[in-house]
Amino acid sequence: MAEPLRIALAGLGTVGAGVIRLVEANAALIARRAGRPLEIVVVSARDRNKERGVDLSPYAWEDDMTAIAARDDVDVIVEMVGGADGPALTLARNAFAHGKGLVTANKAMIAHHGVALAAAAEQARVPLKFEAAVAGGIPVIKGLREGAAANAIERVYGILNGTCNFILSTMEESGRDFADVLAEAQRRGFAEADPSFDIEGTDAAHKLAILAAIAFGAEVDFAAVETAGITRILAADIFEAAALGYVIRLIGIAEPDASDGDGATRLFQRVQPHLVPVDHPLAHVVGATNAVVAEGNFSGRLLFQGAGAGDGPTASAVVADLIDIARGEVGCPFSVPVAELEALPPADSGHRMGRAYLRFLVADRPGVLAEITAAMRDAGVSIESLIQKGRPDGDSTVLVALVTHEGPEASVTEALRLLEGSPSFAAPPLVMHLLGH
Amino acid sequence: MAEPLRIALAGLGTVGAGVIRLVEANAALIARRAGRPLEIVVVSARDRNKERGVDLSPYAWEDDMTAIAARDDVDVIVEMVGGADGPALTLARNAFAHGKGLVTANKAMIAHHGVALAAAAEQARVPLKFEAAVAGGIPVIKGLREGAAANAIERVYGILNGTCNFILSTMEESGRDFADVLAEAQRRGFAEADPSFDIEGTDAAHKLAILAAIAFGAEVDFAAVETAGITRILAADIFEAAALGYVIRLIGIAEPDASDGDGATRLFQRVQPHLVPVDHPLAHVVGATNAVVAEGNFSGRLLFQGAGAGDGPTASAVVADLIDIARGEVGCPFSVPVAELEALPPADSGHRMGRAYLRFLVADRPGVLAEITAAMRDAGVSIESLIQKGRPDGDSTVLVALVTHEGPEASVTEALRLLEGSPSFAAPPLVMHLLGH
Repeated sequence: MAEPLRIALAGLGTVGAGVIRLVEANAALIARRAGRPLEIVVVSARDRNKERGVDLSPYAWEDDMTAIAARDDVDVIVEMVGGADGPALTLARNAFAHGKGLVTANKAMIAHHGVALAAAAEQARVPLKFEAAVAGGIPVIKGLREGAAANAIERVYGILNGTCNFILSTMEESGRDFADVLAEAQRRGFAEADPSFDIEGTDAAHKLAILAAIAFGAEVDFAAVETAGITRILAADIFEAAALGYVIRLIGIAEPDASDGDGATRLFQRVQPHLVPVDHPLAHVVGATNAVVAEGNFSGRLLFQGAGAGDGPTASAVVADLIDIARGEVGCPFSVPVAELEALPPADSGHRMGRAYLRFLVADRPGVLAEITAAMRDAGVSIESLIQKGRPDGDSTVLVALVTHEGPEASVTEALRLLEGSPSFAAPPLVMHLLGH
Repeated sequence: MAEPLRIALAGLGTVGAGVIRLVEANAALIARRAGRPLEIVVVSARDRNKERGVDLSPYAWEDDMTAIAARDDVDVIVEMVGGADGPALTLARNAFAHGKGLVTANKAMIAHHGVALAAAAEQARVPLKFEAAVAGGIPVIKGLREGAAANAIERVYGILNGTCNFILSTMEESGRDFADVLAEAQRRGFAEADPSFDIEGTDAAHKLAILAAIAFGAEVDFAAVETAGITRILAADIFEAAALGYVIRLIGIAEPDASDGDGATRLFQRVQPHLVPVDHPLAHVVGATNAVVAEGNFSGRLLFQGAGAGDGPTASAVVADLIDIARGEVGCPFSVPVAELEALPPADSGHRMGRAYLRFLVADRPGVLAEITAAMRDAGVSIESLIQKGRPDGDSTVLVALVTHEGPEASVTEALRLLEGSPSFAAPPLVMHLLGH
């Protein structure tokens, strides 16, 4: 058997411990498939004595997490520390400075510093891999980078946050409200104590920006992702969507946009709750599952689905990266060399054609419907269906929900601008786009 | 830019022509992603002058398909000829004999000769790749070999034949009968003029045997796949399944079986129409789509879904293999070296626990129900639900459909043996197993 691939593991939270468990449990078959054993040499974390359910005694220990990169007895660093900056970033830079490869599950770090890190890895001729950063155990980065490599990708989109999907599908199934279901998700471990990164869409936006870079050969541009979370969705929205033949899912979607007529390609990136037709494959994705669709110009629609989080699935993705490295696969982290990544400017969503769901909470008094419909007319928004309903909880506000005909997004924006500041509204309007087929 | 990967393409049917179209249309992005251009040098087919919708003038031509492997100006052979033996097999052997890699979409050849060809490729230290042989454009071989490489795979199963899925989902949607829908599928190009390989389950069995070899590190054993097709399914079966909360799909399923108590692992492989619960992801796979589920011991359930056939998707998979080769990826065709593949004996399905749907077409006369239920009782099969119905077409036969409680398959087999030869039956009973969650 060939020499082992020698690993330093930094960060021993649930996922870091999961990597140890996996490497131990599946050692023999991994060695057969990789052509050589994976050997964890040294581990590091903040607190040596914390109980983690794994025996650390077979491994050397380093107190200084960022120093493990300097060790001569290590080939590759596994970074399970987390955080866009701080020790994780220092460790990543150190790894490349010492000519070691890096495997990470750190979506925030890759979304913010991915291109610079890829450049450093390229210069050091070592691998940088982050399959676990997007969609947990699903090999979707490999699917895009390699499986779909023959295709011009026309669109990539999906359900990228398991917490939000758990909440939305549970709301849908139970008719319960957001806050109530969030509390259940926290109790069951599907949501963090501070869930804002998930429910505000930031986590999904990190993942989308990474997928978009790979799919379109573009520099990661997390800042340009138009992001909305799920916190304002009411049980009533889910009910109205269902009546129209849709479910609500938090969808991240990215596509190149060459429609400005100046010959330039721009990049459209959005995370937003969408109305998804019930006969779309993503409508059947329930619970904490993730699913990513890539549409290739020859492959057609490819769907990758599975567990989006959890220590087992995430460890599965981390170790798949390690096996690739053990097999000698280096490759470009973003599919093409960093110098060839394009800096695509953000697309203006105003000229995007589509349909939208708009929901207003309004004072129950005469004239409000006329006010809304007049604004739609003046902005050139054509209404396909509209419903007005008293709220079941006896609230004095009334819910007005409408779905537009296909039209430019700019018109919807203009209609909402016309309504801005009106005293008729009890809350800002909620806009969700309809996902096309 | 590095030297091109020089390709010889044999076989210019719709898929072969699709490979040419793809390589031409996406040449620039493929070169960026592969790090070097793909260059088709020479093509070969039976008839040089057939109209194929692609211009062959840029490429050299060889009349002798099997001789292209000897050319000095070629690095890799793309075999799009088809057929388990004959020119395809000769060409594959010639390729390795001349130290060239091989990319093929030929599921029959790989199912019958895959291990011997992998051994020859290994000896010649050249790649043998066949992503397009299973599930068309879906990168499921890559998903298993690499994406799920960290996992012990516990079960692999899926919808592996687009023709059958188109027929079943159309029957389901329209209430029409098998023969009628098959004729439509043939008109629309979803079924061959001679559809027997598809509708009898052979094509799915080829693909299942390949997937099982990769998933379980076993020698391909196509002969051991227990195979049943969809030709005997009635509109009434689909109706009864729906009433119970199931749809009918042709499922290929493989899993290791260590239950015989002798310490040996056996391999269970079956292609059969199954009753799939409506809330299972595979129940929503309609039309000519394929979908494969792999259950890993850490990843959990991974689902890969997309177009299972067609020139575009198949070409996408073929060229993905070529890009891997251009990037220097050789690897083991079946994930581990041929010498490490295990020759797993076929599992006895008799002790498998599960539920089954049994349907009888019986003479409409007293005592037949008693005969059936007595046989079930005598064989120890517990009936969960049973329905008897006159056939809507005024046929004098009556349909009896029942679903068993969970129990060993051997009991069901025994019950059917007890009923064998009874003059009460107008046709042999139909058995379909229920797919568990």
